[in-house]
Amino acid sequence: MMIIGERINATRKAIKEALGRRDGVLIRGEARSQVEAGAEYLDVNGGTTPTEELANLEWLCDEVQAEVEVPLAIDSASPAVIAAGLARARHGRALVNSISMESGKHEAVLPLVAEHRARVVALAMDDGGIPRTAADRLRVVERIVAAAQKSGLALADVYVDPLVMALSSSGDAGRMVLDVLDGIRRNWPELRSTCGLSNISFGLPQRGLLNRSFLLMAMAAGLSAAILDPLDAKLMTAVRAGRSLLGQDEYCMDFISAHRAGKLVG
Amino acid sequence: MMIIGERINATRKAIKEALGRRDGVLIRGEARSQVEAGAEYLDVNGGTTPTEELANLEWLCDEVQAEVEVPLAIDSASPAVIAAGLARARHGRALVNSISMESGKHEAVLPLVAEHRARVVALAMDDGGIPRTAADRLRVVERIVAAAQKSGLALADVYVDPLVMALSSSGDAGRMVLDVLDGIRRNWPELRSTCGLSNISFGLPQRGLLNRSFLLMAMAAGLSAAILDPLDAKLMTAVRAGRSLLGQDEYCMDFISAHRAGKLVG
Repeated sequence: MMIIGERINATRKAIKEALGRRDGVLIRGEARSQVEAGAEYLDVNGGTTPTEELANLEWLCDEVQAEVEVPLAIDSASPAVIAAGLARARHGRALVNSISMESGKHEAVLPLVAEHRARVVALAMDDGGIPRTAADRLRVVERIVAAAQKSGLALADVYVDPLVMALSSSGDAGRMVLDVLDGIRRNWPELRSTCGLSNISFGLPQRGLLNRSFLLMAMAAGLSAAILDPLDAKLMTAVRAGRSLLGQDEYCMDFISAHRAGKLVG
Repeated sequence: MMIIGERINATRKAIKEALGRRDGVLIRGEARSQVEAGAEYLDVNGGTTPTEELANLEWLCDEVQAEVEVPLAIDSASPAVIAAGLARARHGRALVNSISMESGKHEAVLPLVAEHRARVVALAMDDGGIPRTAADRLRVVERIVAAAQKSGLALADVYVDPLVMALSSSGDAGRMVLDVLDGIRRNWPELRSTCGLSNISFGLPQRGLLNRSFLLMAMAAGLSAAILDPLDAKLMTAVRAGRSLLGQDEYCMDFISAHRAGKLVG
């Protein structure tokens, strides 16, 4: 399972302020520390205000790429910002985060993704909003698959986000995500998946415990990537345990060396 | 997911010694504390020596049932001992732990299970030993299903143990168990499953972390029961998180009250 580092996001106060004063030292530090902790992609989100977002995103791309060599996840809902990010991305294959099946959202972006040989996160929702059942979300996945193929994208470059909702408002929120992941694995074995975790625990105590427990469950159901904070040592401990248990860490070598380095916490 | 408390087992030194001096206080304490910690079945194993096992098991059944009202898991490979345990069990529906598809093992036991309206754990192995692939283990499960049905048992009373092996000797040991659980869920949705956890981490550091991570993954794949030590607070924390995430804990009430009682550790 692949880690997308989530920390460089303008919705975080420290990042918003760093954007305001163009504090490259802070941004580069966030980039470096996430990569050292195991991030394989770095999400960049410059969405302070709609008018500033494009310039913010371009500056973030440049700062991050001057510091580390992992590819970027261009985090925006705006096709123009996504296009600017893709044009600027220069390490590996960028990931567009995200499109959905809402009309007008994916039609502009998928051709760009294909043109730049990039990858894309696709949310399992459409004009009808977020479907309430796993079966209905899988019907949206079917449309994602069709749209990706029409744009010439390989399914292995498409990361479906099943959309994690709060367990506190719907007791089947966890089971539903697992069912969507199961359905993806059965129906489109090449298709990838990703999700954010923290919604699951909204309104409940012990959120970190629930989030990392859910990550392990989603990994068992085939999750290919997760957007998370790689500086959360307990969460990364769960990632390492999960990878070992799934045979994704040959001879458990990363797990054992993380243990020796005192990095396993939990 | 159902918890089978594993502590009253003659392979543990304290239990072996308690059996030697017929220390009912110790056994009853072990019974009480496991039930208070959440055990819904109590495993009883009297296997010190073959000649003593039957009398040990009968004594354990009596002591445990004098103290608590949960049903027993009669843990023996001997049909005679199993018969004695079933004859003595008086709370709820006893669980026979275990049979396998080895010749001569299940033929004697399954009719007893049916006669006592009991339940049974069936190991996914046969005369050829433990199959190396998930597909081959599922072929054994097919035979378990046929044998259970022939004896008049409902599939909901049969708990298949996919057999957890050491990750340190086979990197796919974890994935294989998850694949067997997936296969059970798809092919025989009424059939139950159970497993022990600790083999998975044999030979690796941080065994508790790996065991409880694996439990969450197995729960996601549909595990119906686990035989474990309910006094392990971190493991029970994982159980509670997993149940909440799967919608098995309505409104997360048990999770929230365990949090308030300071029982969540992890």
